[in-house]
Amino acid sequence: MLRLSPAGYKRFGQAGSFEINFGGGEANVAVSLANYNIPVEFVSRVPKNDIGESCIRQLNGFGVNTTHLLRGGERIGIYFAEKGAVARPSKVIYDRAYSAFSELKPDMLDWNEILEDAEWFHWSGITPAVSESTAQICLEAIKTANRLGITVSCDLNYRKKLWKWGKQAIDVMPEMVANCDLVMGNEEDAQMCLGIEPENSNVAKGQIDSDDYSLVSQKIMEQFPRVKKVITTLRESVSANHNNWSGVIWDGSQLIKSKTYAITHIVDRVGGGDSFMGGLIYGMLHFGDDKKALDFAVAASALKHTIEGDFNMVTIDEVMSLVGGNVSGRVDR
Amino acid sequence: MLRLSPAGYKRFGQAGSFEINFGGGEANVAVSLANYNIPVEFVSRVPKNDIGESCIRQLNGFGVNTTHLLRGGERIGIYFAEKGAVARPSKVIYDRAYSAFSELKPDMLDWNEILEDAEWFHWSGITPAVSESTAQICLEAIKTANRLGITVSCDLNYRKKLWKWGKQAIDVMPEMVANCDLVMGNEEDAQMCLGIEPENSNVAKGQIDSDDYSLVSQKIMEQFPRVKKVITTLRESVSANHNNWSGVIWDGSQLIKSKTYAITHIVDRVGGGDSFMGGLIYGMLHFGDDKKALDFAVAASALKHTIEGDFNMVTIDEVMSLVGGNVSGRVDR
Amino acid sequence: MLRLSPAGYKRFGQAGSFEINFGGGEANVAVSLANYNIPVEFVSRVPKNDIGESCIRQLNGFGVNTTHLLRGGERIGIYFAEKGAVARPSKVIYDRAYSAFSELKPDMLDWNEILEDAEWFHWSGITPAVSESTAQICLEAIKTANRLGITVSCDLNYRKKLWKWGKQAIDVMPEMVANCDLVMGNEEDAQMCLGIEPENSNVAKGQIDSDDYSLVSQKIMEQFPRVKKVITTLRESVSANHNNWSGVIWDGSQLIKSKTYAITHIVDRVGGGDSFMGGLIYGMLHFGDDKKALDFAVAASALKHTIEGDFNMVTIDEVMSLVGGNVSGRVDR
Amino acid sequence: MLRLSPAGYKRFGQAGSFEINFGGGEANVAVSLANYNIPVEFVSRVPKNDIGESCIRQLNGFGVNTTHLLRGGERIGIYFAEKGAVARPSKVIYDRAYSAFSELKPDMLDWNEILEDAEWFHWSGITPAVSESTAQICLEAIKTANRLGITVSCDLNYRKKLWKWGKQAIDVMPEMVANCDLVMGNEEDAQMCLGIEPENSNVAKGQIDSDDYSLVSQKIMEQFPRVKKVITTLRESVSANHNNWSGVIWDGSQLIKSKTYAITHIVDRVGGGDSFMGGLIYGMLHFGDDKKALDFAVAASALKHTIEGDFNMVTIDEVMSLVGGNVSGRVDR
Amino acid sequence: MLRLSPAGYKRFGQAGSFEINFGGGEANVAVSLANYNIPVEFVSRVPKNDIGESCIRQLNGFGVNTTHLLRGGERIGIYFAEKGAVARPSKVIYDRAYSAFSELKPDMLDWNEILEDAEWFHWSGITPAVSESTAQICLEAIKTANRLGITVSCDLNYRKKLWKWGKQAIDVMPEMVANCDLVMGNEEDAQMCLGIEPENSNVAKGQIDSDDYSLVSQKIMEQFPRVKKVITTLRESVSANHNNWSGVIWDGSQLIKSKTYAITHIVDRVGGGDSFMGGLIYGMLHFGDDKKALDFAVAASALKHTIEGDFNMVTIDEVMSLVGGNVSGRVDR
Amino acid sequence: MLRLSPAGYKRFGQAGSFEINFGGGEANVAVSLANYNIPVEFVSRVPKNDIGESCIRQLNGFGVNTTHLLRGGERIGIYFAEKGAVARPSKVIYDRAYSAFSELKPDMLDWNEILEDAEWFHWSGITPAVSESTAQICLEAIKTANRLGITVSCDLNYRKKLWKWGKQAIDVMPEMVANCDLVMGNEEDAQMCLGIEPENSNVAKGQIDSDDYSLVSQKIMEQFPRVKKVITTLRESVSANHNNWSGVIWDGSQLIKSKTYAITHIVDRVGGGDSFMGGLIYGMLHFGDDKKALDFAVAASALKHTIEGDFNMVTIDEVMSLVGGNVSGRVDR
Repeated sequence: MLRLSPAGYKRFGQAGSFEINFGGGEANVAVSLANYNIPVEFVSRVPKNDIGESCIRQLNGFGVNTTHLLRGGERIGIYFAEKGAVARPSKVIYDRAYSAFSELKPDMLDWNEILEDAEWFHWSGITPAVSESTAQICLEAIKTANRLGITVSCDLNYRKKLWKWGKQAIDVMPEMVANCDLVMGNEEDAQMCLGIEPENSNVAKGQIDSDDYSLVSQKIMEQFPRVKKVITTLRESVSANHNNWSGVIWDGSQLIKSKTYAITHIVDRVGGGDSFMGGLIYGMLHFGDDKKALDFAVAASALKHTIEGDFNMVTIDEVMSLVGGNVSGRVDR
Repeated sequence: MLRLSPAGYKRFGQAGSFEINFGGGEANVAVSLANYNIPVEFVSRVPKNDIGESCIRQLNGFGVNTTHLLRGGERIGIYFAEKGAVARPSKVIYDRAYSAFSELKPDMLDWNEILEDAEWFHWSGITPAVSESTAQICLEAIKTANRLGITVSCDLNYRKKLWKWGKQAIDVMPEMVANCDLVMGNEEDAQMCLGIEPENSNVAKGQIDSDDYSLVSQKIMEQFPRVKKVITTLRESVSANHNNWSGVIWDGSQLIKSKTYAITHIVDRVGGGDSFMGGLIYGMLHFGDDKKALDFAVAASALKHTIEGDFNMVTIDEVMSLVGGNVSGRVDR
Repeated sequence: MLRLSPAGYKRFGQAGSFEINFGGGEANVAVSLANYNIPVEFVSRVPKNDIGESCIRQLNGFGVNTTHLLRGGERIGIYFAEKGAVARPSKVIYDRAYSAFSELKPDMLDWNEILEDAEWFHWSGITPAVSESTAQICLEAIKTANRLGITVSCDLNYRKKLWKWGKQAIDVMPEMVANCDLVMGNEEDAQMCLGIEPENSNVAKGQIDSDDYSLVSQKIMEQFPRVKKVITTLRESVSANHNNWSGVIWDGSQLIKSKTYAITHIVDRVGGGDSFMGGLIYGMLHFGDDKKALDFAVAASALKHTIEGDFNMVTIDEVMSLVGGNVSGRVDR
Repeated sequence: MLRLSPAGYKRFGQAGSFEINFGGGEANVAVSLANYNIPVEFVSRVPKNDIGESCIRQLNGFGVNTTHLLRGGERIGIYFAEKGAVARPSKVIYDRAYSAFSELKPDMLDWNEILEDAEWFHWSGITPAVSESTAQICLEAIKTANRLGITVSCDLNYRKKLWKWGKQAIDVMPEMVANCDLVMGNEEDAQMCLGIEPENSNVAKGQIDSDDYSLVSQKIMEQFPRVKKVITTLRESVSANHNNWSGVIWDGSQLIKSKTYAITHIVDRVGGGDSFMGGLIYGMLHFGDDKKALDFAVAASALKHTIEGDFNMVTIDEVMSLVGGNVSGRVDR
Repeated sequence: MLRLSPAGYKRFGQAGSFEINFGGGEANVAVSLANYNIPVEFVSRVPKNDIGESCIRQLNGFGVNTTHLLRGGERIGIYFAEKGAVARPSKVIYDRAYSAFSELKPDMLDWNEILEDAEWFHWSGITPAVSESTAQICLEAIKTANRLGITVSCDLNYRKKLWKWGKQAIDVMPEMVANCDLVMGNEEDAQMCLGIEPENSNVAKGQIDSDDYSLVSQKIMEQFPRVKKVITTLRESVSANHNNWSGVIWDGSQLIKSKTYAITHIVDRVGGGDSFMGGLIYGMLHFGDDKKALDFAVAASALKHTIEGDFNMVTIDEVMSLVGGNVSGRVDR
Repeated sequence: MLRLSPAGYKRFGQAGSFEINFGGGEANVAVSLANYNIPVEFVSRVPKNDIGESCIRQLNGFGVNTTHLLRGGERIGIYFAEKGAVARPSKVIYDRAYSAFSELKPDMLDWNEILEDAEWFHWSGITPAVSESTAQICLEAIKTANRLGITVSCDLNYRKKLWKWGKQAIDVMPEMVANCDLVMGNEEDAQMCLGIEPENSNVAKGQIDSDDYSLVSQKIMEQFPRVKKVITTLRESVSANHNNWSGVIWDGSQLIKSKTYAITHIVDRVGGGDSFMGGLIYGMLHFGDDKKALDFAVAASALKHTIEGDFNMVTIDEVMSLVGGNVSGRVDR
C-alpha cells in the first residue's frame, strides 16, 4: 500500500509534496521479520505499473520474498496520513477502494502451494475489512494453515473507516479468529471485532485500566478454544507526541506483563502494532519463552515509534540493547 | 484532479516524494481564463475530505468560482506523471477510476441554473472518457447550452488509457461534437474521436505535415455542420525537451496559421493544449478576431511549456509581450 | 505580510532557503473566521507585484474577501522568523518599514462603504504601531464602526520593535481602546499600551499569577467605560517548546476561566493570539455565551500551536473535539 | 544584498520557499577576484542583524576583506528573482529602497584610509542608482582614487527599475565616468547612462550588430578623455536558456574581439557581467595584455552562466582550461 | 560504491546536502541486466555497517543476487560527483582508497564456486585500478572463467585518478585483456590500457573520427587473439549537456555501426558506458545477433543519459521502443 | 571533518540525501571562540580539493584563522551521524582512517612559529586517537606550549571507535595530560583515558551521582600535578531527546557547581562538550572567575543542544541572557 504524507507536521492543505512510504499491516510484520533474518514471504497483489514495481522492489530490498505477490488490477491502495501534534490527532484518509489487493479473487492464489513449507501464517483484520473476496481468501488461507499444522496468528486491527463492503467486523471476524492460535489486539479491537467489552477503560480519553486485560483475554479464550494466547498492546495516549507503551500476554493461566516505555517524543507511530507483532513472532520462534518474546516485542515496537514510515528498521542487536535496559539514548561512538 | 510527480527528472522508482499539483483539462482552461480576469466557473465533484478541500482552495485562490463544484464521493482522481527527457517519453499512470467526478450522476447538477448567465461553455474529451454518467452529463450540459444560446467549445483531447467504461471515443464523441460551435484537437484526436484520418503525417515519429490540416478540418465541418471553427494545435516533438509549437484555425474558408515557437528547453508540457484553449477563448472574447485570438493562444501556450504544473500562470501582459515578438527571454529588471 | 523562516530549527545564519508564509495579526484572525465559515473581509494594502498577488491569492483561497485590499506602494512588509528551541528563544527580525501597508493614507479607504454591512470590526495594536497614518486610519475605522453600531474588538498586541514612527503605544492606544467593546491582551500589553501594571507576575521568567488578571481587567474597564469584556490570554512559557496555555474573560462582574492546555511539543506558536481572537469572535457570534466562546477560543488556539505558519488551519469539528476533552491525539482512522 | 529565488523554474506564485543567495554588482566582482587569489576589499553597509551577519560571513568565507563594511541601518536590500525559460524572461522585483546601503552617508566612510594601499578601485552603475547619497559617496571615492593614482574601472550596469531617487542615470553617470580609466557596458548601458546610441542593433530582439561597437566605444572615449579602454559585453539572447556570449575591448586604436561562447543550457545568468569584470581586472593585473585579459574575462563569465547564484565560483585553472579551448564539458576523472 | 552529489547543478562548495546514489562500473552492469530479467550476481565487498547494508538492500531490490558479496573492511568507497553544464565539465573526487573492496584478498573469494553455474563473467578496468589485490583477484576470476568455458567481457574503463597502487594500467591490463572474449572501450581506454593509439581523433576537443575505430579494434584483436569482438562507444561531447552517442562493433571482419543519438539535454551521464555494456550483454544473450545487440546497447545507454544516478532504470520495452525509432519523447497517456 | 547526516530522524537506510556539516572537536571550540570575538586559529590538514576548500571557507566565514591549516593528503575525515530519538541512540559511523589529518607528519608543522603569539592552546583526546603521528604532533605542541608559557587545556573526549592505530588511550593520554593546565572530561573519559574510576555512577543507564565528581577530580590532580583545574560535564541522559546538563569545576580545594539545564527537546547534541569548552575558555579569559566561566560554559553548551550541526552559533548576548535566568524561550519581538 502506498502511504502519502506531508513532510513534518504540515497539514494536508499545506503540503507542496507528499513523502512516499510503502507499508500496511502484514507487509510491516514481514519487513520486521526480514530485519531479524527470519525467512518470510508476503502475499498480496499490486498493479502492473511503476508504482507497483517500486513497492515490490522495496520489499525485496528488505529481503521479503514476493514469489506469490501478484501483479494485476487497476490501482494500488493509497492512504494519506497527516502527522498530529500534541492534542491534534494524526489523520488518515483511506483511498483503498478498488485496489488490486481488494480485488484479489479466491482462484488467484493456491494456498496449499504457498504455505507448503511455512511454519507460521499471520494475517490482520485489515484484510477481511477491505472486501468480501479478501475476507474469503483470508479465511481460506487460515483453514489451509490449520490443515497443514501451521501456527496462525492474527492482529485484530480494527479500522472503522475500512469496513465498507457490506458486512461489519463483528459478522466476519469471529469465524476467522476461531481458527487462530494467537490473537493480538487492544480493547477497542476486542469490542468491535469480537463483541467482547472491557469494563473500566476509557479508550477515547487515552486512559487504560491494566487490570481489565485479563478479563477480556479470558473471554476471548473461552469463546475461541483454539486460541492459546491473547496478546494485548497497551497504548496510553498522553498526546499525539507522547504515548506510554506496553503489552501483556494472557497464556490461559497468567497475565505476563512487560515494562512500560514512555515514548515522549514520537517520530512516527504508524506500524507500532505491526512491529509489536513482528517482534512477538520472532520472539516466540527464537526464544520459545513468552516473557522474553513479549519483552522483545514491546522493545521493538517502542523503537518503531522513533522511526519514520511504516517499516520498523531495527536490528536484533538494537532491540536487545533496549530489552537490556539501555533507555538513555546516548550516542554510540 | 490530483497530480503526483517525482521531482525533476526522477523516475517513479527513484522518487522519495511526489510533488503535488491540482489540474485537469477543464480546470486548466478555467485557471487560464481567471488569470486573464475573465469570470469563470468550474463544475466538477471532489470528495469531502482535506484533499478535495485543497483542490477547491487552490482554484478559489486563482479566482475560479466553484459555487457548483460538488463535495462527495469516495476519492479524488489521481494521475502519476513522470517527466521525460530527450528520447525518454513522459509517462502517465492514471488512477482515476471510481473518482468522485466519474461518479457524478445526472441529477446532481442542474445545468439550467448553472449556465443561466453564462456566455460560453467549454468541455474536453476527458469528461466523456471517464464514465458513462459523465458522458451523459456532459451531453446534457452541451444541449442545455445550445438551448440557452451559449457558445460551446470542445477540446477533443483523446486519451487512450481513459476510455474504459465500455464504449470508445468514436462511439460517444460524434454526437457531442455535433452540438459544438468550436472544436479543437490534433490529428490523433480527430482520428480517434471522430474517425477522420490525416493522410501524410506520422504522429508517432513527431513529424507533422501542416498541409494536411485544412483537409481534416474541412472534413470535421462537413460532418458536423454546427461547427464554425476547427482549431488544431501542432506539436512537433523533436524530443521530450524540445517541441516546436504552433496552431491553425480553419474558419470554413481559410486556414489561419500562427507562427511556430521553438520550445527548446521545456519545463512542463502538461496542460499545453488547455492553456491554448484558455488563450483562444480569451482571444475570441476579447479581440473578436480569429488571427489575434490564435496568436494569443499560441503564445500563451508556448509560455505554459515553461511553467511547472498544469496551470498556466501567466498574465495578459506576459502573453502580449511574446505576441509582440519578444522571444529573447532577456531579464526584465 | 511576508514571513520568511529557516526550515525546522535552523538559525538564520544556517539557512540555505527561507520557507514562505503570509500572515500578520488581522489577516490571521480573518483566516480563522473564514475557516469557521464566517463571511469575512480583510482590508490592507500590498504592492502591485507577484509577491503581493501571491498574498491575495492565498487569502482568497481561504475564502477571505479582499474587495477593499488595495494594490500599490513599494514593498510588502517582511518579517524574518527563526524558531527557538528549549531555552533558545524564537527570534523575529522586522523589515516592515515603508511597506505598502504602512504607507496607506486616510483618503485611500472609505470606511463607510467598507463597513456598510459589517457586524463586527476587529483591529490589532500592530496597525497603529506601524506608522502615523495607519494609526490615524485605524482610529477612523473604529469611529466609523461606532457610528454604524458595529461591535469593535481589539487585540492590544504590543510589539516593542515596531513602534518607531515617533509616538509610543501609550500615547496612541488609549484613545483607540476607549472606543472598543472587547479588548484582548496579556499583562505586558496592558502595561505597555495602557499603562496598567500587574502586580505579582513575572512575565520575563514565564511565571503567571492568575489571580492578578481580574485586577488588571477591572482597571481597564474603569478607565475605558465602553469596554464590556476584557479577555486575557495566559501563556506560561516553560520553554520555547512547551507552553501552558489558557485564557480568561472578565465580563465586568466575574472572571470566567478556561482549562489550561499543556502544549508540550509546540510546532509553531506564531499566530497563537490571533487564533484565540478568531475563535473568540466565532464563539461570541455562534454561541452567544462567554464561557463557550472562551472554551472554543482556547482550544482553537491550543491547536494553532501544532500548525506551521501564521494561519490556524482547523475546522470547527476539530476545535469542538478538543473542547469536548479529546486531548489524547489518537489517530483518527 | 539578499537575493530570494523560487527553486528551479517555479514562478513567484508557486514558491513554497525562496533560495537564499547574497550578491550584487560589486560584491560579485570582489568574490571573483578573491577566487583568483587577488586581495580584495568590499565596502558597503548591512544592518546589524543576523541577515547582515550572514552576508558578511559568506564574503569572509570567500576571502573578501570586509574591514570597512559598516553595520547599521534598518534593512538589507532585497531582490526577488524568478528564473525564466525559453521565451519567458527572468523577472526581478527590487526591494532595495531604504536599505542600509542606500542610506550610507558621506561622513561614514573615509576613502583616503580605505584606498590607502589599493591598486584598483571598481564601482558599478548600481551604486549611484540607489540613492543620492550613494551617488555622492561613489563620486567621492572615484575622485579620491584619482588623487591617489589608483586605476578606476566602472561597469555602467543600467537598471531602469532602480533610478528612483530623483535624478536619472544620464544626469549623474557622465561626471563619474569622466574620472574612470576603464569603462564596461553594453549598448543599452551606453545609451541610458551616457546618451550614446548604437545604430543598427536591436537589443530587445536579441540581435547584435558587432560592427557597431567600435563606434560606440570611440564616442565614449571622445567624450571622456580619461577613459583608456572601453569594454563591451555582447549577449545575444536566443532564449532565456540560450545566450551567445562574447566581449570586445576598444583600446583607442583597435577593436580586440573574443571568441563567442554558445551557452546553450544556462544555469543562472545573474552576475554574468560582474564575473566578466572580475575576470577582466584579474586578467589586466596578471597578464598585462588586453587580449589575454579579454579571453580570460569572457571564458570566466561563460562559466558563470553555468553556476547557481550571483557569485562566480570558479578557479583560475578552470577558466584557463576553457580559454585553452576545452569546451567539450567531458567529465574530469 | 557510494556516490555523493550536490543537487542539480550546484558546485561542491555550494552544497548544503549531498544526494546519495550507489553505483560503480560492474554494479551498474548488474542492475541493467536485472532490469532485463537476466539472473545476475554481483561480487564485491562492503563494510559491515548501515551504509554497506543500504548498498546491498538497493542491489537486492533491483533483483541483483549478492550471495557472495562480502561484509567486512573499514569503509565503503566513495566518490563525490559534481554535475557540469555547458563548458563546465562534471567533476569527480574519488575517495576510494582503503575501501572494503580495495582490501579484498584473494583467499576471500572462491571463484570456482561463485562461477559454477555462470554463463558470462564481466569485469571492468576499475577493479584492477583500485589495488594490487583486486587486480590479482580479477585476473584469477578471469582465468577461472576461462577454465569453466564462461564468456568473459571487459570494459577497459580507464580512470587516471584511480591507478595509484604502484603499477599503471598499461602494466596490468594487457594480461587480463588477453583472456577476454569481448572488449569494450573508447579511444582513450585503448591508448592508456593497451598502448594502442588512434590516429586522427582529438578526444580532448570532443571530436571523433569514426574511421579510426576499425584500426584500433583490429590492433586489439591482433594483439589479443582470444578477443572475438571489440566494442567501441563513441561519445562526441558537444558540451556537458549535449553529447552525441553511438557505438560500433568490430567482429574481426567488419565494422557494425549503430545510429547516433543526439542527447541534447543530458540528465546524468555517469554510468553511460556501463548501461551500454549491460545492454550489449543482454542483446548478445537474447538476440544472438551483433547488430541487434549493438542497437539495443546504444539505445539503452542513450536512455541512461536521461536518468539520475548510476543505474539504468529502464525496461526492455522502453529500450525496444527507442530501437524502433520512437525518438520523439511524446507523452505516453 | 565532514559530517554527513540523514535529514531529521531518518535512519541511514532511509536517507536519499545526507546533510553536510563540517565540524570536529577542536574546530568546534575554535568556532565558539570566534563567535565570542576571540581571535583564534585552527591547525589541521585537509585534502587539496573542493571538499577541503569548503571546510576552510566555512571556518574562515566564522572568523577562524586558518593560516597554518595545511592542504594535502588523500581524503577528508568523514563521519556519518544518525540522530536518535527517545530510546533509540544516535549512531555514528566513523570513516576517518587515512584522512589528511591522520596523516599529518611531525615535520609538517612548526609549533614554535604557530604558537608564537598565542595565549592558550587547546587540544582534545580525538587528536591522539586518530593516528600515531597525530598523537606525536599533539604531544609536541603541548610541550612547545609549555615551553612558551601558554595555558594548555584538554578535553579528554574518549571515543572507543577511534583508537585503532595500535595503542589505547590509557597508553598515550596520561603523558599528554600531565602537561596540561586544565582538563575537561566526564566519568567515562577519566576511566578510559586515565584509568581513574568513578564509584557510584552508572553511565550506561544515564544516571549520575554528582557527589562522585570531586573524588575523580582530586585523583586526576594528584596524579597530574600540573593540572590546576578539572572540569566535568554532567550529562544525564533521560532519553535521546531529553538530557539534563550541567558542569562542575574542581579547583583543587572546592567543587564549583553550575545550575542544571533540563534540555527537554534536543535539536542536536553533537558538539555539546566542545561548546562547553569554548564557553569555558572564553569565560576564563573574559571573566577571570571560575564560577562565572562555568556558568557561561554551561549556558552556552545548553544552547548548543538547540542548534543543528557541530558549531555553536550563538552570541555572547544570547548566552548571557540565559545565564541571567531567561529560560522561558519567549519570542523576542
